[in-house]
Amino acid sequence: MDSLYIIKIGGNIIDDAAKLASFLQSFAQLKGKKILIHGGGKLATKLAEDMKVPQQMVDGRRITDAETLKIVTMVYAGYINKNIVAQLQANNCAAVGITGADGNAILAHKRVNAKIDYGFAGDIDAIETRFLSSLLDQGQTIVVAPITHDKKGQLLNTNADTIAQELAKALSRSYQVQLIYSFEKSGVLLDANDDKTVIPSLNPVYYSQLKTEQKIFAGMIPKLDNAFTALNSGVKKVIIGKAEELNELITGAKGTSLTNE
Amino acid sequence: MDSLYIIKIGGNIIDDAAKLASFLQSFAQLKGKKILIHGGGKLATKLAEDMKVPQQMVDGRRITDAETLKIVTMVYAGYINKNIVAQLQANNCAAVGITGADGNAILAHKRVNAKIDYGFAGDIDAIETRFLSSLLDQGQTIVVAPITHDKKGQLLNTNADTIAQELAKALSRSYQVQLIYSFEKSGVLLDANDDKTVIPSLNPVYYSQLKTEQKIFAGMIPKLDNAFTALNSGVKKVIIGKAEELNELITGAKGTSLTNE
Repeated sequence: MDSLYIIKIGGNIIDDAAKLASFLQSFAQLKGKKILIHGGGKLATKLAEDMKVPQQMVDGRRITDAETLKIVTMVYAGYINKNIVAQLQANNCAAVGITGADGNAILAHKRVNAKIDYGFAGDIDAIETRFLSSLLDQGQTIVVAPITHDKKGQLLNTNADTIAQELAKALSRSYQVQLIYSFEKSGVLLDANDDKTVIPSLNPVYYSQLKTEQKIFAGMIPKLDNAFTALNSGVKKVIIGKAEELNELITGAKGTSLTNE
Repeated sequence: MDSLYIIKIGGNIIDDAAKLASFLQSFAQLKGKKILIHGGGKLATKLAEDMKVPQQMVDGRRITDAETLKIVTMVYAGYINKNIVAQLQANNCAAVGITGADGNAILAHKRVNAKIDYGFAGDIDAIETRFLSSLLDQGQTIVVAPITHDKKGQLLNTNADTIAQELAKALSRSYQVQLIYSFEKSGVLLDANDDKTVIPSLNPVYYSQLKTEQKIFAGMIPKLDNAFTALNSGVKKVIIGKAEELNELITGAKGTSLTNE
């Protein structure tokens, strides 16, 4: 099986033009098949202010009303996605930018929640691996914006971490998938305030122990739970660290590698 | 050779949700390979007002400064393109939405003009037909937003009519291309104010005569000049008419068919 890198980048890189350009240069040089999933960034919030669309947050999650869906579709699928594609092309990396609606790549449904109406938030049902493989097999790098659809004409705002995980799981049937979650820290930290305390390797037993000791908490828990779920579903390796250190993450010199043993 | 429909729709359809839905339903049912090119619409102008980005027009053309490029990228490549793709999927028409940056499909350069700086306006240099054919041959309908790139990382705002024409010319080496320009009138009219005076068929001699008689003038001239150029470059047929009458345009019952004889 061919190897495939699936890399998720977040707002901290997307909002910083110099950091993004440098990351895309490293990413373009990475040999082999690859998929890049990007989140949003501050531009969507800024645009919502300009358009006077109030943003509702519940438990740290954005409620996607119709106007907010319009904004994230414009910013994620339009501005961010196409600028990344153009920069990759400039770095001689053949690339195609998609949402989950394109090629029916990511089918989702509107989130059902008895207590909170999240609006046009999508939970993923299926991945169209044949379409994605056909692009990868033509030598195209795929750039995915975190927008999906329900095949009934409705676009849906979908968490980029979850998209990365679902793509990794589905494509691990055809490729040896390495899933890289990049964020603002150097990896999973023993001391959340000290970037020098990166845990190089984490397995389920050690993870459980660190949770009991409350050294891993809050937002890291769903991220790591998802990562271990991915490993249990055939993904070969999950790496967590800084996008700026992409090469070192891949060689194992930096970041946290998750294993199932 | 397989036949291929290349259809351009404009703002009058895009700005009217009910008309657009009805057009997309007819378009989805059209058998065979097809490409849809969409222009902008009023949303870009509205968004520019919200973002307080003044729009400069010179000779009826929008000057694309950096902020305006951001807006058209968001609106054309994001909002309009992805909503069309989602609606086609809902109509069981497999579709992929692209810009010229995706798959390096449409390579352009920033317009050079000694008198007027059009800003980030793109003039087309090359079409990557292999990428487009690979999508078509997989049964995907391609939806093209009028944004191109220069392969140096710069996105460019590009006229949708010109994109339609260049795609038609390039793809006529591999397909029997029928190019359909849809606009707000029923076809090329003998009397610009009477929608009942559609000219069913137009050849270069008759076209020349009507120009001399000043029955065809203003904005129709560049449109028709482009259409005849396309016919001279291998495109099988060019049809001009209303998007709402797509089926009748194809059967020849309505609209104006351009021929080279």
